[in-house]
Parts: sequence; C-alpha cells; structure tokens
Amino acid sequence: MSTTLPTRPLDSAPARTVVAPVIPTRSRLRPLGLGEVRITGGFWGSRQSVNAAHTLSHILGRLESEGWLPNFDRAAAGTLPAGRRGREFSDSEVYKYLEAAAWELGRRDDVELERTFRAVVARVAAAQESDGYLNTEFGRPGQQPRWSDLEWGHELYCLGHLFQAAVARERTRPGADDGLLTVARRAADLVCQVFGADGIAAFCGHPEIEAALAELARVTGEERYAAQATLFVDRRGHETLADIEWGRRYFQDDVPVRDAAALSGHAVRANYLAAGAVDVAVETHDDELMESLRAQWARTRGRRTYITGGQGSHHQDEAFGDDWELPSDRAYSETCAGIASVMFSWRLLLADGEAAYGDLIERTLFNVVATSPSADGTSFFYANTLHQRVPGTVPDPDATSPRASSSLRAPWFEVSCCPPNVARTLASLDAYVATADAGGIQIHQYAPAEIRTTLDDGREVALDVATRYPSDGVIRVTVNEAADEAWTLSLRIPEWAEGASLRVWSGDTVTELAAVSPGWAEISRPFRAGDVVELELPMAPRVVVPDPRIDAVRGCVAVERGPEVLALESVDLSDGGDVGEVVLDATTPLAEREGRVWATFSGRPAATPQWPYGEESAKASAPIQSVALVPYHDWGNRGPSTMRVWLPTV
Amino acid sequence: MSTTLPTRPLDSAPARTVVAPVIPTRSRLRPLGLGEVRITGGFWGSRQSVNAAHTLSHILGRLESEGWLPNFDRAAAGTLPAGRRGREFSDSEVYKYLEAAAWELGRRDDVELERTFRAVVARVAAAQESDGYLNTEFGRPGQQPRWSDLEWGHELYCLGHLFQAAVARERTRPGADDGLLTVARRAADLVCQVFGADGIAAFCGHPEIEAALAELARVTGEERYAAQATLFVDRRGHETLADIEWGRRYFQDDVPVRDAAALSGHAVRANYLAAGAVDVAVETHDDELMESLRAQWARTRGRRTYITGGQGSHHQDEAFGDDWELPSDRAYSETCAGIASVMFSWRLLLADGEAAYGDLIERTLFNVVATSPSADGTSFFYANTLHQRVPGTVPDPDATSPRASSSLRAPWFEVSCCPPNVARTLASLDAYVATADAGGIQIHQYAPAEIRTTLDDGREVALDVATRYPSDGVIRVTVNEAADEAWTLSLRIPEWAEGASLRVWSGDTVTELAAVSPGWAEISRPFRAGDVVELELPMAPRVVVPDPRIDAVRGCVAVERGPEVLALESVDLSDGGDVGEVVLDATTPLAEREGRVWATFSGRPAATPQWPYGEESAKASAPIQSVALVPYHDWGNRGPSTMRVWLPTV
Repeated sequence: MSTTLPTRPLDSAPARTVVAPVIPTRSRLRPLGLGEVRITGGFWGSRQSVNAAHTLSHILGRLESEGWLPNFDRAAAGTLPAGRRGREFSDSEVYKYLEAAAWELGRRDDVELERTFRAVVARVAAAQESDGYLNTEFGRPGQQPRWSDLEWGHELYCLGHLFQAAVARERTRPGADDGLLTVARRAADLVCQVFGADGIAAFCGHPEIEAALAELARVTGEERYAAQATLFVDRRGHETLADIEWGRRYFQDDVPVRDAAALSGHAVRANYLAAGAVDVAVETHDDELMESLRAQWARTRGRRTYITGGQGSHHQDEAFGDDWELPSDRAYSETCAGIASVMFSWRLLLADGEAAYGDLIERTLFNVVATSPSADGTSFFYANTLHQRVPGTVPDPDATSPRASSSLRAPWFEVSCCPPNVARTLASLDAYVATADAGGIQIHQYAPAEIRTTLDDGREVALDVATRYPSDGVIRVTVNEAADEAWTLSLRIPEWAEGASLRVWSGDTVTELAAVSPGWAEISRPFRAGDVVELELPMAPRVVVPDPRIDAVRGCVAVERGPEVLALESVDLSDGGDVGEVVLDATTPLAEREGRVWATFSGRPAATPQWPYGEESAKASAPIQSVALVPYHDWGNRGPSTMRVWLPTV
Repeated sequence: MSTTLPTRPLDSAPARTVVAPVIPTRSRLRPLGLGEVRITGGFWGSRQSVNAAHTLSHILGRLESEGWLPNFDRAAAGTLPAGRRGREFSDSEVYKYLEAAAWELGRRDDVELERTFRAVVARVAAAQESDGYLNTEFGRPGQQPRWSDLEWGHELYCLGHLFQAAVARERTRPGADDGLLTVARRAADLVCQVFGADGIAAFCGHPEIEAALAELARVTGEERYAAQATLFVDRRGHETLADIEWGRRYFQDDVPVRDAAALSGHAVRANYLAAGAVDVAVETHDDELMESLRAQWARTRGRRTYITGGQGSHHQDEAFGDDWELPSDRAYSETCAGIASVMFSWRLLLADGEAAYGDLIERTLFNVVATSPSADGTSFFYANTLHQRVPGTVPDPDATSPRASSSLRAPWFEVSCCPPNVARTLASLDAYVATADAGGIQIHQYAPAEIRTTLDDGREVALDVATRYPSDGVIRVTVNEAADEAWTLSLRIPEWAEGASLRVWSGDTVTELAAVSPGWAEISRPFRAGDVVELELPMAPRVVVPDPRIDAVRGCVAVERGPEVLALESVDLSDGGDVGEVVLDATTPLAEREGRVWATFSGRPAATPQWPYGEESAKASAPIQSVALVPYHDWGNRGPSTMRVWLPTV
C-alpha cells in the first residue's frame, strides 16, 4: 500500500502553466500547482498512492453498481424516470469522481485511467440535453420540472461539481479532446441564461456552483460565469428559498453573506459558499465582502471548530451550532465539511498570505481528511465523532451504510459525498503545499516534495523537501538552483510549534536562526545550489486545554503531537476497558516509547444504578495503567471500539 | 389566573367507581381517581385552573383554525383528500383534546365544555367509516391506502389516542350518550380484525395504542382488546418495520421489548411502549417482561435522564442517546417524553409500590410538565433545553413554530403533540396524588387536596392535605374520619429529602417520629378524627453534583430546592450578561432572600478570537456578583434570554 506510484516529471521551465484547483486573477500568493510541486512520498504521498491505486476504482465500482453512473445511460436512452436510482444529488458523485481522476491524471500518466475517464465523460455527455441542461433527476416526463425545487433539488450543486471536473481536466490536460469542457460550458451557458440578471432571481439550496463558476470563468475567460457567481452570492440571505423546520439558516439564506458574523447552518454548504464568496470578492475587488469573510473565518475557527479542525456540531441539520457548542459525542464534523473548510482557508491564504490559514488547513488535513479513509482506501467515515461511546458494529461491505451512525468506516453510503470528495482532495493535494510571490517561495504544508518554479523576475528556483513529518519534526529543504540575488524562502511555523529551530547549511557554514516562532520564518539570501535549510519542529507530545467556554469538554485535556491530535481507544486499555470509565492522571507526564505516546489513567469506581445527581461521588480509585494513545486519524482500524479525544482529569 | 375553579364534590361512599387513567386488574396499589382525590389549590391547582380556563379553549381554537378538526367534517362530506391540512398525525390532537376535556368534565361541571365536547365527538363520529375505520389521512380515493405506511402513518397511534379519550369519558361520565365509546369500540374491533392473530403481523411505528387497548379492555371488559395489545407488544423488536437511516431502534423494532436493557430510540415512543408493556405484563402475568421493564426503568433513570427528569438527548431523531449522553445545550427533553415517562413510572408504581417511581414522577412533573406551558397556558415549550446559548426570538403568535428551535414558548407547532398532552395530564393530575391498598393510603405527590375513599375492609377514610409546597416544605394531613383499628398512612419522602421530619398531633399529644429517611414514611395507628400528620421536608437549596460519567456537565453543579431544579437566566445578571460568561463561586454558600435563591458568580476574562485550544487560560477574574436563580419551570417568561441549569465551577 505504501509504495508511491511513479509520477510525471515537473514542468520544464519556462513555459509553466499553473495546474491547481484555485487560480485567482489577483492574489498575494501565487499557487504552485501540480506542474510545479510534486509530493514524493511520506504521510501524504502514501495516501495519494492508495487513493490512486484503490480508492478511485472503488468509487467507480460503486457508481456503477449503485446505478448512479448508469442513470446517465438511461437518460441518454430515454428510459430514465422509472428506473432512476440514488438520491437527487447522485450525479455530483460522478462529477467528483471525474475531478479526482483528472487531478490524478495530472500527477501520473495512466493509460487505463485515461481510457476510463474518457468513457465516463462520454456517458455523461450523452445525457446532456440539446439546450445544455444536464441532470438525471429533473425535467423529463414523469420527473419534476427543471429548477422546480431549488431548496432540495441540488441541480446547480451538481453542475458546480461538473464545472470543477472540467476545470481540473482543462488545467491538467489543456485542450483534451474528450469534450468535458464543452459539456460544462454548454451547461454553464444555460445557467447564465436561466439564472442571469433577467432570469430566475434565486440560487441553489446547496452552494457549490459559486466557486465552480468563478474557476470556470478563470479557465475559459468567460466573464459571464464569474458574473453569475457574483449574482448567486449576492442573492443569498434575503429569504428567497422556502422556510424549513430548521430555518433558512440551514442553506445560508437567513443573512446576506457580507452581513454574517460567523459560518452557520449546514457546515458543508456554509464553507462552499464562503469559498465561492472569496472568489467573488477577489474578482470584483469587493473589499468589504473580503473583510467580512476574514472575520467569519476567525470567529468560526475561534468558537465553532473542533480541535481536529472538524466543523459541524449538529446531526439533525449537519450544521454548525452556536458559539462554543462543540459536543464531542455528537460531533458531526463531516468529512466534506473539513474539505470545504480547507477550500475556504486556502482561498484566504492565497489572498492574504497569513500563516494561520495554513495552520487550520494542516490541522484539518491530518485530523479530518486523513481520518476518513481506511488504510486501504476503500471505506470511509462520513462523520468524524470525537467520542465514540459504544463500540458499534462492523458495516456490511455489500450494503450502503447510514452516513453518520456507524462507528467504523463503511465502504459506501446512501449519501456518499465524502468518498469522492476525499479522492479529489488527495489527488490535488500537491497544489496545497507551496506558493510563490514576487520575492520567493512559501511552504505551507510539510511533505517530501519537489518544488520547481520560476520567480516573477524570471529566476528558476528548485527545491527538494525531505522529511519524515509527522513521524519526526525535521524538515530539510535543499536548494537545487543557485541565485545571485537574494530571494526569500518562507516556512510556516505551526501555531503549536513554540520552540522550533531553524538553521541553514551553506557549504561548511551553519547558521542558526534565532527566534523562530509561530507564523512565517523567512530566510532571505542568495541561495547556492546545495544549500540546506533545516527546520526542526518540536514533536514532544503536548497537553492541550480547551477554552473554558466549551462546555462539552470542561475538566478535560487533549493530547497532541505535532499536527496530530491523539485519542484514547478502548482496544488499548487492558481487559476490554471502556474509555468512559477512566480518568487521566494529569500528574504523571506523558511518555514516548515504541513510537507511541503513553498516558496514565486510573479507573472510576463502578457505576451504581442510582439517580445520577446528588452528593459528590467517590474519586477515581481503581488501578492505574499506562496506555498508548493513537493518532486520531488512525482510530477505528482495529475493530469495534470506544474512543475519546478529550480525556477527563476529574 | 391563580383562582381555583370550583370542582365537583368527591363521590359519596360507598358506591365509588375509580375515575383514573390507569386501572390495572391487579396491582399492589389501587389508584384513587378523580372521584376520590381532588387537588384543591396550590402549585398544581393553579395550573389546573389555567388549563381549564385557557388552555383547552386555546387548543380547540387552533384545532379549528389549522383545519385539523375540519378535516373530520371534510371526511364526512367526502371532500377531504384535496383539502386535508396538517401532518399525518393531526387527528390525534383532536383526540387528546377530547381526553383532556373528558377529564376536566370529571373534575368540574361545565355546561359549555360539555356541549363543546359533544359537538366535537359528533364531528369525529361522522367521519368514521361503516367498518369502523377512522383516519383523515388514509384510505380514501386520492389518499394512500389504509395501513400502507405503518412506519410513519400513525393510524394506530391516532386510534390509541381515540381510545384513551373514550376511556376517560366512560370513566368520568359512565354511560354518557355521546357515542364516543361506540366510535372507539367500532375502531378497536376493526383493529383486532385487521391486526389480530390471523391478520397483518405488524404494528404501528409510533407506539401508543398498546396502553390504550389495555385500558379500553379494562373499561369495556373486552379481553380481545387486551389480547391485541399483547400481540402488538410481542411483535415488536423483530425488524418488521422498514429500516430507516437512524435504524429500527427509532421505533423500538430493533430488540424485543423483553430483551432491551434500557429505553432507546425515540423517547416518546419508547416510554409509551414501555407503559403499554407494563399493562400487558400485568394482564398476562408475565413476570419476566415485568422484571425487564423494571430494569429498563432503572437504567434509563440512572444513565439516560436529565436532572429535570427530561428524556431524549438527540434532536435528529428525538431519541435517547447512549448511556451518559446528556448534553445540556442539545437536550431535547420533549414535553411529551416527560409525560410518557410519567405514564411508564406510574404503571410501575401501581404494580410495585416503590417510592422511587413517585420520585421520578415528581421531578418530571415539576421540571418538565410544569415547564412547558406559559403562565397563561397558551404557549408551550416542545423541547426543554437545559442550556440556552443565544436569546432567540419571540415566536409569531399567529404562526406555527418550529417545534424545537425557538427559545421561547410558542402558541402552536406544526407538530403540536405537546399542548394537548399537557392539557390531558393536568386535567387528570388528581389521579396521580394518592393510592390505597388493603392497609391504608399512600400519598405520592404533595398538593392541597381532599382524599376520601373506602379501604378494603369497608372503612371510610377521609383526609385533607394542606401545604404550600413547594414554596415551603410543610405538609399537613388532617384525618377527618375516626377509625377503631389501625390503618397506615404512607408518605413518600423524596430521594433528596434527607433530614425530613414527621410528627403526629392527636388531641394534645404530639409524637415526633424518628428516622424519617427517603422512601416511605409509614404511620400506622387507629387515627382519630382531627389527628394531624405533619411532614416537614427540608427546603434549603442544595448543590447537586453529576455523576462524573456525564461528560456534558463535568466541572459543573446544579442547584435544587425541594423538587424544583433551579436555573441561571441572563435577565437576572447585571448589564445584560450572558450565562456563558460566568463561573459559580462554589466557596460562597447559597443564600435565600426575597423568596429566591441567590448564588455568587464571577465573570470570565473576555474571549479572544484565537484558536481555542492550547495553554491553560487565565482564571475567572471579573467582578463578583450575587445573582438570583429562577425555578427552571419559570424560565423564559421574561423575554428573550440565555439560560443554564448546570453552573460551571471552573
């Protein structure tokens, strides 16, 4: 599983095109895409290889067997309405598969995958109607009329994912003759016609198309698409959609985007919308909107985000809770919300260049995105609880699972947005590693990687990143091109990395850089080929205390090591213990041995069947044991278990 | 509002019939119904008067204006399918109104209410079909076929409420010529025919009809009805109903009733089913089932019940959570679940005579049932959160409100089960005050009341209870009939009442009874007319600590006074404070003055916009203030506010 598949070589200078999911027309930082950065192994490289070797074909198999891809064939054959299978948004999973495959084909030459990709595109294209409309759930005799259910129909949402697939394809294989971009453009033209300034003055219940239209505009040069994205963002928040039991907040139609104080409502929708709103703010020079989005990001991070980076506290409406409402056991923390949060943060990072955005991205990648797929890449968490109270059951591999109630990863869900979302994220992950600006290169995420780009002044820069991060904290960046004039290598020092150290080897000279603290560490010099910048991040396990306003975890601490949140899993307790019955002995320091972090726990006195509120009960007294914690992203891989991230100290 | 309406005199001896919601054919304790117990004022008498004077007419008005009662007229006129309004269970609200009115007419003569009652019965009866079928949502041309959606259709559930209304009527006005009992019998006969041993081997997704059939059997002598209840209970738990996303646990079809370890799934359904299962166990002498139900009650009380007595931790499926999963801010604690829990506990209390059942009933009555209605009886809480984080908005009095997301009581809901459920409970509350057995009288709930009954040996007993409980803890029981031989007056000493005292005045003699502790205090003697038993319960406010396994409230305490749980409400804080920003100073004792309980709080340092997990933050430091707590059942009556029951001490 951990073999890294061979990837395509990086672009040769100077005719580089950026091959990335987000390419703003203006930004503080310029994204370095798949042509300029290549993850070559390590934690993320291994996951990318599993994604390529197993996840993509697993998804395609399910798209076929569940009937979601055959829906397109039936649509083309005119036999759809009676036989359609899947939920109203199942088309989007096909498009996310295409996007994932497109990015993967940007990383690697794979004749078989290319053939499959083209075959799927052909089936999709065959279902498109003559005016550009494309959706298998609506519009045919026997189906609901087009655009008749904007609240729940997901038609524009599905098209958004279609556009993102087409953008990925055009960026990774410009001018490919498979027809996907044409399909997307025809659909986008219809959207602009139907929902334009003189059209239906509404928008989709599930945001997604906003960011997709902005990117389709960037890739095609069609400004109408960006204008349509702006219309969709501006129309939102004026109570246009029908009210529902959970209120219009569910689909962010309660408050205009620019007037919101924090993300709220359905957590995936909120983040997709925010990502699209950043795109709109960038394209329209809307500084007021941008400032509001920055503030919303900060408040959401500060009061509505789990320690894992996960977002969404409600099962009922898959939604954010109020400020400080972050229950561990009912954490929804949907995998797709984590991915959507990365999309929002990444756009702000490009716009502003603040290291804090990269901090949240790293936390979310390691503790939400990496948590979802199993080691073999063929089963997934949809929700990512922080506290599993009962061991649950092993999902039936041949069935679709309830999305959020199983305690173990499941191969597929009736609502199966997460697996292909993970796949497209991993396949494009190279693009989130580094950026450039006029003065140099910024490294945001640490992984073994090659980086090769041309700075604005025409200088070639080539770097090689070697690291076993997060196994250890040493990151070595070797400069492979000499420069006469100084340029700046900026390294993100994570918010948890107080005490990081940084040194530069140049020939026989070692320079220790003083005062490296969280934020950006910048090394400006005329680098020589062979110079090595070595960053060492402190990897001792850390005891972390929550803000006391987070009621759900009062009296608890968590343990982190590097970017990884750790968890206590019952399979590591003696005697089939239960994580609900132990108390952390906070007086005994954490230990590291056998490659794991160990903490000390005592047991609680046995529960009585009495009324559970009254006098202070006896303190923990049962035998003390030393227990190895598990990286949260690895939990649930050893059979049914109970698990908790927050460890009670009382 | 607090004027007590004049009630009918108690029955004259000896031809008493029991006028109570539950009359088991065998039980340890014999219920004393509305003919033998009359609440005469005080906390509950005042609520009964508001219920009679305002709530019943409020409900009837909404049943008319929402179209739920006119649905019956349309059904009779054959114009229903196109114009039906309301959810699939809206018929049941009409039946619960009838039940409430029937009990009220058992308490009080009211010509106007009697006329209204008969008119509503006539409209219901007109809609019944020739074979006894009665439901406005199913079975007509253009509607779904009868019994075609047992998971969600609520047809049998609605009939259960019809039967309970007919039982209430027959017990309060035996042989009334309004026809309601006939309507119920015809429907019950159809149910036995369709779902009997040779019929459809299934049951209703929403339990309710089980307890109703058992009682209808008791009131009519038709054993077929009890047998049908037994069939429904026995069939459950074998995965007969279709699976749903939340699993069959939602409607208790995952595990047979007798094999369950605790109540689980939808909290109202679980309690209604458990109540019906007790009835079945009693009627069929099924000791195994009975023992299982006792254990389920104990585990549910010990691990799945809020300090208020509320049950149900999930908004998503209105369900119990796992053991110890009791979030304050997402407490669902549906009013109807509290009422259903009282129904379950009451049946066990009659069967076993244990004081603990009365403890939970008292807690639930004071802190769930009394919390739901506003002081004027025309708006209601559907869910009863223990922590309101944001002030919310005042509901539109002319609209129906979302059931669980408003922070203030609302006049009506799309799902409006709670208002008529509160009404029928308050109107029959007299029946939950006291019981009798061969040796004497047991008083379970303390309220000003008259009690008059005949013991098994033919002796007349008449008592008068005088108390201002829970304003103070003195309960005076005056015996109004002399007895030559000893009989036993048993008084429930609540589980919180350590240090209660009890004395008996007989003529000039005062006898102090030693060692009164929680459980039953029994006074056995040949009482003389005029003897007074005085119980004094300790009413000093108590600081209560949760079991440390309840993660959601670790590091917090609650304050109780007598049977009332108290809460901190933001309107009592200075400067429009927020209950999320204060810390209880646990070193300062609680104080009582101006009729309220005062606690001391300090403020937290202002929240920063930073990542909320890291180093220990500064301790509370802001100015200290003394704040009056509010009885939980009174919160939300002074405009939008934030509120919390559990008070953080760190």
